Parts: sequence; structure tokens; C-alpha cells
Amino acid sequence: MPNLYDLAYDLEKGLRESAEFQGLKQAYDAVMADEAAKQMFDNFRQTQIVLQQKQMQGEEITEEEIEQARKTVELVQQHPQISKLMEQEQHLNTVINDVSRIITKPLEELYSENS
Amino acid sequence: MPNLYDLAYDLEKGLRESAEFQGLKQAYDAVMADEAAKQMFDNFRQTQIVLQQKQMQGEEITEEEIEQARKTVELVQQHPQISKLMEQEQHLNTVINDVSRIITKPLEELYSENS
Ligand SMILES: [Ca+2]
Ligand SMILES: [Ca+2]
Repeated sequence: MPNLYDLAYDLEKGLRESAEFQGLKQAYDAVMADEAAKQMFDNFRQTQIVLQQKQMQGEEITEEEIEQARKTVELVQQHPQISKLMEQEQHLNTVINDVSRIITKPLEELYSENS
Repeated sequence: MPNLYDLAYDLEKGLRESAEFQGLKQAYDAVMADEAAKQMFDNFRQTQIVLQQKQMQGEEITEEEIEQARKTVELVQQHPQISKLMEQEQHLNTVINDVSRIITKPLEELYSENS
């Protein structure tokens, strides 16, 4: 009988050593080592978190806030190191979503058998 | 360099063969094989899905709906096969949440380094 926790730790170790994670780590460390880039990235993150929370709580998001968020995105996209970091994030997110889909497939299959 | 997809498929295979998944499958198949139990379980599921969707869309949930949902839960909990199925679901959910936490730990660690 396989131990799921052992297999999960194998996957965690693999993730840590993967090109995808190492690429993200390099990009992240580069941004964090540059004070101006770090601040810009933190602002961007903070703006996103605030908007997400409002959305989840069903609060109204004003046009000013949407415009502000759009500008923050534009700003970070023009910063080479931050846009590199965001690319790496997206890449790893794709992989993690794929992994999630793979490991929840047995459950999905089970529950679709009789519906 | 480890291949994350290979590791994910190992975990998926392990999950499929695990005592936790096999226990859930047995409980699920038992409920589905009993027409009355299947209908009761489907009703319960449907009620939950409707309430979750309302909650996510920020719609108001009436006291009648809460009371109705509470009754549906009580009903299924009294059904031995369905309550067994729900126990197995909770058990596997715990395992899957643990696995999720394990494999997202590298990311969490990375992002907490500089905050
Ligand atoms: Ca089906
Ligand atoms: Ca920290």
C-alpha cells in the first residue's frame, strides 16, 4: 500500500529542485535584492490582495480602483525584473494547476460515474 | 532534474491505490447501488451546491434555506451508508489538503522570505 505522504514529499522535493521553481526563485531573489523593484512589486501585490478581498466579500470595486490596479499592472510589466518574475510565477502556476488536476483526477472520475 | 509531471502521476497512482481512496470508492459504490440512498445523497449534494453558489455570488441565503439544509444534513447523517460515505470523504479531503499543503510549501517559504 503506497504512503501518500511519502509520495507528496517526493513531489515537494521534486518541485524544489525543478527548473520551474529554481527559475522563479532566481527571479524573485533578483527583485527582492533591488529596493526600488521590491517596493514596486510589494505595492502591486498589496493592490491585488485588497481587490481580491473586496471581490470575495462582495464589496463594490470602484472605477478608480480598477483604473489604479490597471496602472499598477502596467508599471510592473514595464519593469524587466518584475515582469520576468511574473512570467516565472505564471509558468509555475500552470505546472501546479496541472499537478492539482492530475492528483484530483481519481476523485473526479469516481464522482462522475453515476451522475 | 526531476520531472514534476512524472512525480504527480506517481502520486495520482498512489492515491488511486491508497486505503483512503479505496475506502471512499467502496462507500460511494454502496450508496450508488441503493436507489433510495442515491437519491437522498443526490438531494443533499444538490442542496449544498445551490447554497455554495449563492454564497459565492453574494446572494442572500434565507433562514428557510438554512433550516432546509440543516434537515438534509440530519437526514443523510442518519443513513448508515451515506454517513459512512461522508466520513470517508472527510478522511480523503484531509489527506488531500495535507498533500496540497506539502507541495505548496516551497512557494510559501519563498514568498515569506522577504515580507
Ligand atoms: Ca457521468
Ligand atoms: Ca517573513
